[in-house]
Parts: sequence; structure tokens; C-alpha cells
Amino acid sequence: MATLRIAEWSVALSYSDLPSSVVDAAVRSFYNWLGCALGGSNHPTTTTAVKALSPFFGKETSSLLGGQSTGSGAGKADASHSALINGIASHVHDYDDTHLETIIHPTGPVASALLAQAEALTAQGMTVLGDDFLLALVVGIEAECKLGLAVWPKHYDVGWHITSTTGAIGAAVAASKLLSLSAEQTAHAIGIASTQVTGLREMFGSDTKSFHVGRSAQNGLLAAILASQRFTSSTSALEAKRGWVNVVGQGINRLDEFVGSLGKVWEIEKNAFKPFPCGIVVHPVIDGCIQLHKEMEEKELDMQGIKSVKCRVHPLVLELTGKKTPQDGLQAKFSVYHGGAVGLVLGKAGPAQYADEVVRSNEIVSIRDRIDATAGEKLGADETEIVVEFQDGKELKKHVKHAIGSLEVPMTDEQLQEKFLDQVSLVLGDGAKKASDIAWSLKGVGDVATLVKTL
Amino acid sequence: MATLRIAEWSVALSYSDLPSSVVDAAVRSFYNWLGCALGGSNHPTTTTAVKALSPFFGKETSSLLGGQSTGSGAGKADASHSALINGIASHVHDYDDTHLETIIHPTGPVASALLAQAEALTAQGMTVLGDDFLLALVVGIEAECKLGLAVWPKHYDVGWHITSTTGAIGAAVAASKLLSLSAEQTAHAIGIASTQVTGLREMFGSDTKSFHVGRSAQNGLLAAILASQRFTSSTSALEAKRGWVNVVGQGINRLDEFVGSLGKVWEIEKNAFKPFPCGIVVHPVIDGCIQLHKEMEEKELDMQGIKSVKCRVHPLVLELTGKKTPQDGLQAKFSVYHGGAVGLVLGKAGPAQYADEVVRSNEIVSIRDRIDATAGEKLGADETEIVVEFQDGKELKKHVKHAIGSLEVPMTDEQLQEKFLDQVSLVLGDGAKKASDIAWSLKGVGDVATLVKTL
Repeated sequence: MATLRIAEWSVALSYSDLPSSVVDAAVRSFYNWLGCALGGSNHPTTTTAVKALSPFFGKETSSLLGGQSTGSGAGKADASHSALINGIASHVHDYDDTHLETIIHPTGPVASALLAQAEALTAQGMTVLGDDFLLALVVGIEAECKLGLAVWPKHYDVGWHITSTTGAIGAAVAASKLLSLSAEQTAHAIGIASTQVTGLREMFGSDTKSFHVGRSAQNGLLAAILASQRFTSSTSALEAKRGWVNVVGQGINRLDEFVGSLGKVWEIEKNAFKPFPCGIVVHPVIDGCIQLHKEMEEKELDMQGIKSVKCRVHPLVLELTGKKTPQDGLQAKFSVYHGGAVGLVLGKAGPAQYADEVVRSNEIVSIRDRIDATAGEKLGADETEIVVEFQDGKELKKHVKHAIGSLEVPMTDEQLQEKFLDQVSLVLGDGAKKASDIAWSLKGVGDVATLVKTL
Repeated sequence: MATLRIAEWSVALSYSDLPSSVVDAAVRSFYNWLGCALGGSNHPTTTTAVKALSPFFGKETSSLLGGQSTGSGAGKADASHSALINGIASHVHDYDDTHLETIIHPTGPVASALLAQAEALTAQGMTVLGDDFLLALVVGIEAECKLGLAVWPKHYDVGWHITSTTGAIGAAVAASKLLSLSAEQTAHAIGIASTQVTGLREMFGSDTKSFHVGRSAQNGLLAAILASQRFTSSTSALEAKRGWVNVVGQGINRLDEFVGSLGKVWEIEKNAFKPFPCGIVVHPVIDGCIQLHKEMEEKELDMQGIKSVKCRVHPLVLELTGKKTPQDGLQAKFSVYHGGAVGLVLGKAGPAQYADEVVRSNEIVSIRDRIDATAGEKLGADETEIVVEFQDGKELKKHVKHAIGSLEVPMTDEQLQEKFLDQVSLVLGDGAKKASDIAWSLKGVGDVATLVKTL
């Protein structure tokens, strides 16, 4: 009954049922997604996909976010391709949100499908309210994360990219909600999405990794559209003997448990945002170094007076990001030393601080070479202890118990905005602030498509 | 190395390398596919998909076969949707071909992608020769069936629809061949296709079952198109630790063995064709009854003189198709009694003999009621012994050792043509014979798209 229970829960839920904390989480998730999608819109993976697929674009109802820079001309596509391309863009920098319990990046598949569909509805003369959009986003993300929990961790361990395998189903639930489908139709949409299991981890490191996210958005949207025309699948798609959980769960099946917690435990509240565009294990050091940068500014301490920076870190940090002398931005993502250096010197570690020329600059390299990191067995994965020694014998210390971006120390709205602007200004230049204001205004807005049009 | 080995084998193979028996099998496979796709073009599953998805159709380069009856207007779509829709149509009557060792229906995914792509190339001013088309069809089907063998039987047992899970990869190899991609690009195309594992058996009995076949064609085509623009995946997609075989093979991995037999054992030669549009277990009885019909005509024996028809059959026949009094065409597919009756009375068991009015006609029901079937433990699954008793004491006997359509008694070209005409005349009327002539002429034809255009 899990398939129908998800469908019935989604159909019954109204905006007024959402706790304000859930609405806030949805707004923040959408905001972060939009920044990532705009920020990834001119990445070669995204532009290659646009180039390859534009001959197939249908009626241009829906945005390719940041389209002016993809070289696609109109910056529009049919809803299906819009979902695909925006989904790719939102994941391509590995900078999107994370449901930490399942490491699902939940908003990419769902929001990419929803925005494309909202604009397509508008092209048909309908209007999608911001609140309805947020409600659909919530049901999609809840369904997606509950399914992830139901098969965690073996589904991921064996090799499935859990973001896209569950994301297509979340996107189907969300798009069904936006289309006001019945519970039975929603169940069929779940079935059509679930039978398209997209995402092998073997693709990590290639263009196809972010393709997974876009394709899951597209598959979910397609599923809802087919179901809206009464195309049938199975209303037991998830729980049946040869259904989704049994085929891809590798023996783990906690479906009833987690479907039973729908509306009781809200997964979107546990969605976290990455403050820095690099591996999450580096984040404590960057966080501490940015705090030290501020302290040095306040105390008017000279950067060149630094003798050494000693970081005690979780052992995984050295294993995953131990690159001493990175030569470009990509290598720098795997260097705790570069992360610490830009944090200390520049007080920031956004996309601009991972540009090749920054990585190779004397200013950064000279401090980077003074940073040392050693493994501290008892430290948490999001913890670090940093000691800065100055040539005159002074010392500064910083203990980061939980890095910024963790559930304990979530990013503030202001920090999310800084992240947004850092990404989007590289694509939209001065238009980034306007885009940010638009993205924050989703809640209560009268027409989502018009809102996006002004981007 | 399996991924690259398949790619390299495909790139190196030329038409002159194909044994004539392989070319013949490819022509017959294409011919049978085209008949099925035309025959399924006006099925509600197909027309619902067209209705739902036509808003997304891009530039109309490629045919929706039988398009005049789908209500789509032009009968065309972009190549991607053409692959999807024709793939659905070709499988929707469960009347397509079967690679018996894996029960893959191999031609649907591959030919649907290829024809769509061939027409798209023509729209760009290129020409696709019939021989090149057949060569691409062969490499696609070989890759698809070798992969099926590599994970048989557990992959199917656990719940994957093996036709579509392997079909997307076969379609990717075939489309890559038609696009003259390099071995490396072909490997990336295999990767992009393999990461989209489409088809849960739970969907059997719904519209989504044939959607699997169409979607696999579309996914394979898309993979080749992305790879042609150097979109990357993994060149170890099939064999890697978290690649296709390990994730979906359920512990079975005979990849090296079967990839090693490429070009040595030709799977397409083992492709079988269904003579009758119903479960394969009924085929021996139908075959025997059609032979008895001819014998009675020759001996001028009156049908109404029949007292009883006693069939000894494999036990599975009664288990799967034991319906005594079917009320419509769908139920009749699960009735060995109906199959025997139309064989005896009409000498045929094509789609027209499964029309509701035939199933309920007095002519058929009166004979059907005289047919008895009992299980014979020692009979093969494709074997039957039939005894017809007449009221005057006469008897006719027929022993079918291997039913028509088995590898031992393959359908002749004439029988394939009769099947084609029976299906296609229900859609194209008098145009069926012309379509048949066109379909037979693929080998050596100068331009595949023009050939199809005349359909």
C-alpha cells in the first residue's frame, strides 16, 4: 500500500498543513537550488547537453536558467528539456543541498521538474501560485527522502546514485501535485517514474553524474504528464514483489516505516546547504580559517606575520583532500591547504576563490605552504582545532565543533544569500542581486512563471 | 574492458563481415518489427502516449509509423519521440520477436532508435543506405543479447524487464554505429545508456510495459547523440565495480564470456518470431489445428461433423491458458480452446481471429466447446498431440513435435509476410501489401528514409 499511501498523503496535503519551519526550509531549498542552477548554467557539461539536444527542443514554454549564457538563443525549451537542463546545471558544481541522512541532493530533481511544469502551465493560460509551488516542492522532497531512507544504505553502497533514483519519484509526486492529479493517477505517476531507475555511481567524475539529476527531473515530469492522460503503470509499484524497493533495495526494505512517518517527521527540515564548493570534509577548516581571518582583521594582524597554521582534523580529511600543491581549481577542491589559505587570506571560499588564477597566485600559495594538517582520531568529521603561530610568538586558536552548513550550525539566510550572489554574479554579473531578491520572494507570490521571467 | 571491447568490435565491423545468414536474419527481424510497429500504432497505449507527449515534440524529422491513425496530424515527430512511440507500438501487442535464450525482444529498442535516427540524418541532408542500417541493427542486437546472456537468468528473475534494460544499450551501440562514432565515443554512449536502467516487471499488464521498449530506444538514441558531442560517462560502465553488471546482475556476471563471443556466435540468428498473437504455450495447438484445417479442406470433411477434439499438451498450457469460455479478445489470448477453434475452423489465428466478435461467434464457440485438453507430462513445451473424432467414427491425428515459430521450425518468409499483412491491413487496409514490399526491400536500398516515406 506504500505507493497509494504516498499518493493519498500528497493529494490530501494543503499549504495550511505545512508548519512554518517546513515552509521556511522549502523557501531556502528553492533559493539555494536556483543559485546553483544559475551558477551551473554556463558549465561545459550543461552547455554540451544543450548543444546536443537543442535539435529536439519542442515548443519553448520553459526557461533554461541563465539561458543567455548557454548560447541557446531564446533561453527556453519545452518543459521536458527545461527540467533536464536545469537539473544538470543545479548539480554540476556539486554545490547543491544535502539531506544528510541519505546524502540525497533533494531539490535538484524536484524543483527542476516543477519550475518547468509551472511555466508550461502558464503558457497554457494557467497561473501557479508561489504557495502551491512550495507545497508541491515539499511533497516531492518528502517522498524522495522517505524512499531514500527506506533503502539506505545498501542501495547507495551497491552503486546507485540515490539522488536520481529517488529523485525521479519525488519529481513525479511533485509534478502530480502541481497538476492536481488524483491519488490513483499520482500512484501511476510514481510507477512510471519508479520503473526508470537512473544513476550508477560509476558515472561519478563524468558529465553523466549531473545528467542523472536532470534526467530524474525529466523522468518524473514525464511520468506525471503520462499519468494525467490515464497512462497506466502499477499502483503497487514501490512495494510489489518485483517492484522498486525489492528490485533496487538490495534486501533493505523499510518502506512502511518511513512512509508511515510522512507528515510526522519532515525530511526537508533536515536539508543542509553547502557553504563552500568543495568536499564537505574540508568545511570545518575553511570555516575556522574564515573566522580567524575576521579576528585578524579586527586585531589588525598582518597575514605575512604568520609563521605556521596547524590544523588537527578528522583522518578522512587527509585521506580525501590531502593535496599539498594543487595546480588548478579542480585540484584545489581536493586540498584542505587551499581551502584553509583562501579562508585565512581572503575570508571567503566561494567559486571565485577556486578559480585557477587564485589557486596559483603568490598571495595564496605563500600562506598555503605554511599550513600543516594532522589527523586527530577523536575529532568529529565536522570538527577541527586550528592554531595560528605568528613570527612574534603570538598565537590565535580556533575550535570549530560543528562546521557551518551542518544541521547544528545551519547556514543563515544571509550566508545562503552570499553563496547565491557568489555563484550567480559569475553568470549574471550585476543582475545577481535582482535574481536573489526574486528567488527570496517565492512564498506568497501570485505567479511563479512571471517571477522567473524577470530573472 | 568489456565496454570498450563491445565498442571496438562494433566500430570495426563492416557489412561485408556479416554472414549472409546474419543479413537474412536482420532483414526478417526488421520486417517483423515494422509489421508489429504498424500493427500497434493505433493501440490505445500508443495513442495515449502520443496525445500526452505531442506538446513536447520538436522538429518533425522522423515518422510515427502508421501516423495517420494516431491522430497526431503530420504523423511525424522529432527523432527522440519517434523512437519512443514506434518502440511502444512495436511491443504493445506482445507480438514481436524473441531471442529465446534470454526472452529479450531484441528488435524493438534497436530498430525504433535506428529508423528515427536515419530519418533525422536524412533531414540533415545525409543518406542512410539500407546495408548500413542493417549493419547497425546487427551490432545493436548482438550487444543487447550478449548483455542479456551475461546476466541471465537472475537479472530477469529479480524483476528487471530484460528487453528494455539491455535494449537501451543495444540501441546506443546501434545509433553510435549509424552516426559513425569512434570506439571511445561509443563506449561513452554505452555508459550513458547503461546508467538509465529502465523496466520493472511489476509493470507487466499495464501501458508502462511497452513504454519500457520505447523508452529504451529513446534512451539509447539520446546516449549516442550526447556522446557524439563528447558528453562523457565511463568507458568501464558495464564491468566496473559499481557499473551495470555488478549493480543489476544480482551476482551473475558472464560478461567476458559473452562479449568474447561477439562475431563468433551471432545472436540474431537465434531470433524467433511469434506466429500467433497470444501466449507462446498455445502455439503448438494452434499450429496443429491449422494443419488439421488444411487436411479437412483437402479431404472435404465438414466442420460440423466433428464430435470431439482431444489435445494432449504440456502442463503449463492448462496452467497459463486454461480459460474455457473467453468472452473477448483479451481473454481469448489465455484460452487454448479459442486458439484451437480458430485454427480448426478458420485455418488462421492472426489478430483478426482475436477480435471480440470472432471470440463470441457461434461458429467458433460451437467448435471450441468440443475441444478438450489434458496435460501430458512427457510432452515438450512446444509439442502437442491432437486427435479429432468425427461423428461417423473417422479420426484425424496430428503430432506437432516443435511448433511453428520455434528455432527448429522457424517461420518461413511467406508466413512472416502473412503475419505482417494480417496486422498491417487492420491499420493501413489495402496499403498493407505495398508496406510489406517496402519492408522486404531494405537490403541494398539506397536510402532508408525515402523507403519509409513511401509507407
